[in-house]
Amino acid sequence: MKNNATSPDYNSAPPNLTTLANASLFETWRPRAHVLPAYGQIGDPCMHYTDPSTGLFHVGYLHLGASGATTSDLVTYTDLNANSEPFIRAGGINDQVAVFDGSVIEKGINGTPTLLYTSVNYLPIQWTIQYTKGSETQSLAVATDGGRNFTKLEHGPVIPSPPFAYNVTGFRDPFVFQSPSFDRLLESSNGTWYTIISGGIHGEGPSLFLYRQYEQDPQFETWEFLGQWWSEEANSTWTEAGWAGRWGFNFEVGNLFALDSDGYNAEGEIFVTLGAEWSYSPIVPQVSDNREMLWASGTHKFVDGKLQFEPSMAGRLDAGRSAYAAAGKHLPSSSQASQSSGASDRFITYLWLTGDFYGTLDFPTTQQNWTGSLLLPRELSVGFINVADNALAWEKGSWRVESQNDNGTLTLATLRQQIAREPLQAFQQNATNITTQPGGMISSSQSFDQSPNSKHYLLAASISFSSRTNENLKAGFSILSGPNEHTNIYYQFSNESLVIDRSNSSAAASTTPGIITDNESGKLRIFDVPSANGTSIETLNLTIVVDGGVVEVHANDRFAVSTWVRSWYEDSRDVGFFVEGGEAEFGEVKIWEGLVDAWPGRNGTS
Amino acid sequence: MKNNATSPDYNSAPPNLTTLANASLFETWRPRAHVLPAYGQIGDPCMHYTDPSTGLFHVGYLHLGASGATTSDLVTYTDLNANSEPFIRAGGINDQVAVFDGSVIEKGINGTPTLLYTSVNYLPIQWTIQYTKGSETQSLAVATDGGRNFTKLEHGPVIPSPPFAYNVTGFRDPFVFQSPSFDRLLESSNGTWYTIISGGIHGEGPSLFLYRQYEQDPQFETWEFLGQWWSEEANSTWTEAGWAGRWGFNFEVGNLFALDSDGYNAEGEIFVTLGAEWSYSPIVPQVSDNREMLWASGTHKFVDGKLQFEPSMAGRLDAGRSAYAAAGKHLPSSSQASQSSGASDRFITYLWLTGDFYGTLDFPTTQQNWTGSLLLPRELSVGFINVADNALAWEKGSWRVESQNDNGTLTLATLRQQIAREPLQAFQQNATNITTQPGGMISSSQSFDQSPNSKHYLLAASISFSSRTNENLKAGFSILSGPNEHTNIYYQFSNESLVIDRSNSSAAASTTPGIITDNESGKLRIFDVPSANGTSIETLNLTIVVDGGVVEVHANDRFAVSTWVRSWYEDSRDVGFFVEGGEAEFGEVKIWEGLVDAWPGRNGTS
Repeated sequence: MKNNATSPDYNSAPPNLTTLANASLFETWRPRAHVLPAYGQIGDPCMHYTDPSTGLFHVGYLHLGASGATTSDLVTYTDLNANSEPFIRAGGINDQVAVFDGSVIEKGINGTPTLLYTSVNYLPIQWTIQYTKGSETQSLAVATDGGRNFTKLEHGPVIPSPPFAYNVTGFRDPFVFQSPSFDRLLESSNGTWYTIISGGIHGEGPSLFLYRQYEQDPQFETWEFLGQWWSEEANSTWTEAGWAGRWGFNFEVGNLFALDSDGYNAEGEIFVTLGAEWSYSPIVPQVSDNREMLWASGTHKFVDGKLQFEPSMAGRLDAGRSAYAAAGKHLPSSSQASQSSGASDRFITYLWLTGDFYGTLDFPTTQQNWTGSLLLPRELSVGFINVADNALAWEKGSWRVESQNDNGTLTLATLRQQIAREPLQAFQQNATNITTQPGGMISSSQSFDQSPNSKHYLLAASISFSSRTNENLKAGFSILSGPNEHTNIYYQFSNESLVIDRSNSSAAASTTPGIITDNESGKLRIFDVPSANGTSIETLNLTIVVDGGVVEVHANDRFAVSTWVRSWYEDSRDVGFFVEGGEAEFGEVKIWEGLVDAWPGRNGTS
Repeated sequence: MKNNATSPDYNSAPPNLTTLANASLFETWRPRAHVLPAYGQIGDPCMHYTDPSTGLFHVGYLHLGASGATTSDLVTYTDLNANSEPFIRAGGINDQVAVFDGSVIEKGINGTPTLLYTSVNYLPIQWTIQYTKGSETQSLAVATDGGRNFTKLEHGPVIPSPPFAYNVTGFRDPFVFQSPSFDRLLESSNGTWYTIISGGIHGEGPSLFLYRQYEQDPQFETWEFLGQWWSEEANSTWTEAGWAGRWGFNFEVGNLFALDSDGYNAEGEIFVTLGAEWSYSPIVPQVSDNREMLWASGTHKFVDGKLQFEPSMAGRLDAGRSAYAAAGKHLPSSSQASQSSGASDRFITYLWLTGDFYGTLDFPTTQQNWTGSLLLPRELSVGFINVADNALAWEKGSWRVESQNDNGTLTLATLRQQIAREPLQAFQQNATNITTQPGGMISSSQSFDQSPNSKHYLLAASISFSSRTNENLKAGFSILSGPNEHTNIYYQFSNESLVIDRSNSSAAASTTPGIITDNESGKLRIFDVPSANGTSIETLNLTIVVDGGVVEVHANDRFAVSTWVRSWYEDSRDVGFFVEGGEAEFGEVKIWEGLVDAWPGRNGTS
């Protein structure tokens, strides 16, 4: 089903790709080092867990139900079932029409990994339309056969309805967690399981609903509603300045966990990652123009006896408009991956990169025979930045002033996010080719001395700026560049944004519907930082992964923007400096080519 | 499918009936004047309503889902669908495996008759076993095509679960009602709909759960739990003396309504009819030895802010062990039936007479090709009896002392129940033969001068006793009697019971499994009543309906015992006085033969 069609000619202008044979584009933009099924559509990542009996980390994602793979190193993956066949499918009594996201209690019913997932019996469901009662319920399934199957329990949903009289916009994606601080605050027994369910209320706003396992029912069949743990006013935002998108009208895929500066710490600071859905006005039924992949951290308070979350900082987990639905899980130090890498407890999250913009694009799907991918796993922790005490730091942004220091500097806190150490190291260690491009002060775009031979590589670079006042300066890199196509990735102070300019990224865009080339952009503040001479502008550190059509741009361990770049031509492989309207000081740029085949067990046909 | 087989020879001893051809017993015990489907199994009556647009009363019952008929006079019925095909079937998303009882809001969604019913997704369900979560939910369907179909709404159950953490024994049979007194007590808007749901809680006891329509949702999708309106301790009873059975472990088919001495009155006294399930010890999983068809009346109190019912009297609605699952409905004076008969508002109830003892009998079902029937409709009201003030009246029984009167008498209140006036009158007016047997003081059994020519008739009689102290006296009638078989119906003071002695009722019982001939018996107190000479013993007034195999015995407008009598021989048609161990004064006995064919529209084949 995969690449048995004649390969297209990447040295000529592309035809309308929808005229090509089925599966002929299978390899064209396919990533090598990312998680995606053997073929077909991938949806939200979800249902990850470390199997206590093997130490293997199970990465799940929606695909014909939900499918997944195991990994011992976060680098290579083994499909749980041949051809990425799902471990759970829709079609049971509780989920006649769909299985939506869920999460796993590692030692659940009878000590077995136990899935709490959204069982769907009625469609459509969207925040823009009246909610169909009973459309989304939360049901249980237990791992059998090492997780190759999750068998639905022979009873009804364990959370069969939103709370009484809540006219919800959505009620899905249960995320289970344990938390000693919740136990203390809510006077629960130690080790009590909780779940948040994402959604919102019509006319009020998005919300996360908190439930607690009823301790007299060890079968996880009974969950107590404890209130709306977090609600925001409809269509509001953390800040209109754009540091954290909009809260929108409906939350999805909420994850709740605790971090410290090393990673996961159950006693650490409470963080949430969540998807937010909203629309420009007027709201069109069944159209959600915008989705935001956000994070927030905050504190607890009690309001009318209900535990509530109050954010103290918030931001975008990824600024790419196709990057969404992050699903994370505590990866214990006892996992095989962490045992090998020596990592302590981590919280690892995978984002989804939708391949057809949430189903709205008329992409040549049958020609590609797969749609969408996950992004590389990321490690989350609390990040601290020492900065100059000025207005840049005090603005309400995607950070928080943690302390005012004796030396006159400020320590900011934010969410630190980095590509997981194992794939990052593997891409370097296993590179088939490593090239180094000297840096220096650069004032105009220029190609690298040596460009990659493929479209699969890791690039690391840094850029220093002497001034933030040049409104015209754009500094960064061109990638996937050649005579016919190029993509520019740059930072600009004018709106403090990191931009992926895709306007000339794909010759196929003009011949073929569904290949979008609009820009991706996200706000990133580069602070003033203390230096020997007083203050200087924080260096912009970029880590760029190009993997077929997937481009991930990570900056300063606190920013990411990921998207599709669908270059067509064989020779669109060049990398270069991209500078306009000024100059910037580039550090040495290093490119590790080849990445790693994440799927050594797949046999090339499916 | 009906009577196309050779008729058996009722003049010879019966063979093992299971050896006969399919459907050959179709006519043998089939009632003529009762409600039952054209063929097949009947279950609980339910889902009755008067269609406001036609004034027709719709009588429903479980049958391949639920089926029903309309009536303009409570005498004759018209199947809603040919061959009694159901108006609702199991198999939707909410009810994959079964449709259980429900009740109808006459002007519900968009003014259309709207059914709230128990949608079943998992079996088995019984109070003797652990409850399967989500097995019983309450869902909506709306009448289309004049009630010939009820179309399920395209959303999930509106009551998707018992209340949080209630480990129920059952959760079914929603009975909807309006009540101005509930509105006042619960501070609801006028005309609010309520429902009780029958069930119980493991380790606690049987219960009726009260819900209220959420007034902000006119679509009846949202119901607020208001608490356990009535709970009894497991395996307890109103009185161990046996006047009101046992409350058992699980309530079923609870109906809630208000009565006065004329019939239905929304402002009247609150009554409940309900089924109670219990078992002798030890309780065997999935075996409910006993079912009681009970009624209760009582008062309201608030406990911890919750409205609760406290019975002030209770009794059996029918003492027959096969009579169960009564389902009633307010029949308004505007209905066609009441317009014709001139009746004011009534509460009409139909009981089920299970044909195979709740599925436990190995009856020759295929030979009969139908199983079970409803009993004749009954009118319920508050009954008052003027009695002598003595211990007989003051005992805790199925009555209540309403007042102590100036003349030294007591007025007792109880549930009055009578065969609905229309069929009772029709049986008399349409009789094909009327015979009168003179009464008198009778001291030994003797045949009537003239017995009926068929096994379909109404008999009215009265018996007066001069003493209640003769422990040996049995006085009543033999019916369905002949050289080979007879059934005795008698009252005895020894245990104040009305008995149907079936021990010699069926020659088929000895040849064929599943024909039970054990006695039916119910407690009936005949009070001392004021008379010209001080006090006398209340006269026993009997109304007996024999309709094929169905025998209903009604006494003094407050007692009924109904059962199957499966006489075999053609000549088992005699009626006689039955007196043993003493004497009694019989009034004139009248027999109206023929009854009425309740199904003139059925064409004799199906």
